[in-house]
Amino acid sequence: MPDVQIVEVAPRDGLQNEQRLVSTEDKVTLVRRALDAGLRRVEVTAFAHPERVPQMADAETVMAEVRDDPRLRSIGLVLNRRGLDRAIAAGCDEATVVVVCSDGLAVRNQGVDTATQVAAWRAMADDARAAGLATTVILAAAFGCPFDGEVATSRVLEVARAVLDAGPDELAIADTIGVGVPAQVRSIVAGLRILAPDLPLRAHFHNTRNTGYANAVAAIEAGVGVLDASAGGIGGCPFAPGATGNIATEDLAYLLERSGVPSGVDLPAIAATGTWISELVGYSQAPAMLGRAGGFPR
Amino acid sequence: MPDVQIVEVAPRDGLQNEQRLVSTEDKVTLVRRALDAGLRRVEVTAFAHPERVPQMADAETVMAEVRDDPRLRSIGLVLNRRGLDRAIAAGCDEATVVVVCSDGLAVRNQGVDTATQVAAWRAMADDARAAGLATTVILAAAFGCPFDGEVATSRVLEVARAVLDAGPDELAIADTIGVGVPAQVRSIVAGLRILAPDLPLRAHFHNTRNTGYANAVAAIEAGVGVLDASAGGIGGCPFAPGATGNIATEDLAYLLERSGVPSGVDLPAIAATGTWISELVGYSQAPAMLGRAGGFPR
Repeated sequence: MPDVQIVEVAPRDGLQNEQRLVSTEDKVTLVRRALDAGLRRVEVTAFAHPERVPQMADAETVMAEVRDDPRLRSIGLVLNRRGLDRAIAAGCDEATVVVVCSDGLAVRNQGVDTATQVAAWRAMADDARAAGLATTVILAAAFGCPFDGEVATSRVLEVARAVLDAGPDELAIADTIGVGVPAQVRSIVAGLRILAPDLPLRAHFHNTRNTGYANAVAAIEAGVGVLDASAGGIGGCPFAPGATGNIATEDLAYLLERSGVPSGVDLPAIAATGTWISELVGYSQAPAMLGRAGGFPR
Repeated sequence: MPDVQIVEVAPRDGLQNEQRLVSTEDKVTLVRRALDAGLRRVEVTAFAHPERVPQMADAETVMAEVRDDPRLRSIGLVLNRRGLDRAIAAGCDEATVVVVCSDGLAVRNQGVDTATQVAAWRAMADDARAAGLATTVILAAAFGCPFDGEVATSRVLEVARAVLDAGPDELAIADTIGVGVPAQVRSIVAGLRILAPDLPLRAHFHNTRNTGYANAVAAIEAGVGVLDASAGGIGGCPFAPGATGNIATEDLAYLLERSGVPSGVDLPAIAATGTWISELVGYSQAPAMLGRAGGFPR
C-alpha cells in the first residue's frame, strides 16, 4: 500500500456527539497525547454555534492552548462564513469546510441545502487562502443519508465538481453514517480522480456497520493518501441518527503497520489515549479493539 | 465481487469459547434460526473431548436434533481420528479437520505438533470420503500465533502442500487470533492458488483488532468463495489467549448486499438471531453492529 497520513479527529468528531461535556483541559490533553503518539495533523475543534454543538463551545480556548505547539498542524471544522472567520482568528493552520451531499442531512446539519453550502464554500475560499489557511472541502453523507437514503455516486461527483472550481487544497469524502462499502469507495474515488487527477484526497469513515476498516483499505488502494481516524474510535454526528464512532486511530495504525505502511504512530501510546478518552466520555469499553486485544504477539 | 457463500459458525466457534454453558435446546434453536435466515452450511458442533471443550459436550445430541432438516448441510469440526469417527456416526455431511500452522498453538490446541496433525489428516482422509463426508482442512493460526508470533506465508504454504496430497474437497485459512491484514490474505491466497488452482477456498476471520472485514473483502477479491461468520460476531478459541469474536454474519451479509453480492441471507432475521445469542451467552451488546445500527436507511 502507498504511504498514508492519519488525521486525528477525536478532539472534534470524536467528542462532538458525546453527551458528557469534556473539560477544556481534557481536550487540550487529548490533542497533546495525540501529538505525543506521533500524530501531526489534528482536527482540534469545530467552529459551530455553541447552542447547536455545546461540546465545541470552547473552540477558541482549546485552540489558544495548543496553537503554539510546533508539532501541531491544526485543523478547524467550519460550517459557514462565521465559522471560517473564527478559525482564522483562532490561528488554525487549516480549515475543513463541510458540504453535505444530500439535501436531507444538509438542511438538518447546517440549515441550508447542498447548493447553498457549495455557494458558501465558493464565497469563502479566497478569504481562507488570503488568511494563509489551507482548505479541505469534506463531502459529507457521500455514501448514504439518514434522511434521503441512497446518495448516488453521480450526485457526489456533481457536488465535487462544483466545489473544485474554487480550488481547495484537498478534497475529502465522508461516510457520515457508516453505511458505505468498498465498492462505493472505489467508484467515488475513481470519479474524483477524473475530476481532479492530482488533488490530494482524504477519506473519513465511521465503523457503524463494521465496514469502516474495509473502506479505509479500499480508499488507500484507490490512491487516497490521508485518512481520518479518532483515538478510541469514539465519535459521530449529532444530527445524524444512529451515527456511531469513527474508525479508531490505533486499529487503523495497527492495520497499516502490519501491512508494511509506516504511519508514524506509536501504537501503545495511541491505544492508551483511546482507552483514556473513551472512558472519560463514558464508554464501558472503547470501540477500538487494540487497547483490549494488545498488539501482534511477540 | 464474485458470489460468496457464508458458513454459519456460531453454533461451534461462536459458542465454544463462552464460559456460560448453552443448553442443547438453545443450540438447536440457533441452528434453526440460522437456517430460517437463509444460511445453509452450518458448523453445527465440534467433536472434541468434553473435558477440554465443555460447551461441545452435547455434540451428538445437537446433531441428532438437526440432521434431518432438509435445508441443512451440517459440518462437524474434528481434531483427530476419534473426532472424525464421532462426526461420521452423528451423520454430519461434512468434516472440517483442523491443522494448526504453528507448533506453539498446535500443541496447546491438540497436544501434538503441526507435522503430527498433518499426518493424522492424511490417515483420516480416505475414511472420511468412504463414509460419504466432504472434507475441509482448515489451516489455523495462518496469520500469526499467540505463542510463536509470526507465521510466515511460506510456512502456511508448506503445510498446505502436505495437506493437499490427501485431497480435501476444500481448503480453509483461519486467522485464529485476529492479527491478520489484507496484504497477508492476498499473499497466502495467491500461494494457495498456485498449489491448487481449482480447489474451493474458504476463509475464517476474527475481528479481534478490527481487521476482520477488510480481510474478508480481500479474500473475496482474491478468489475465496466461502467465508465463515458467526451470528452476533461471538466466538473465539479456548486455547488462544485474547481471541475474540468471529466476523459477524449480519455485518458481513450487509457488506455483501450493499456491494451487490447476493448472499441469500435475511439481514433482519440474522441480526435478530445475533442479538439473541449474544445476550444469551452474556454480552452486554453483540460484537456485531447491524442489530444496533439498523440496515441502510430507506
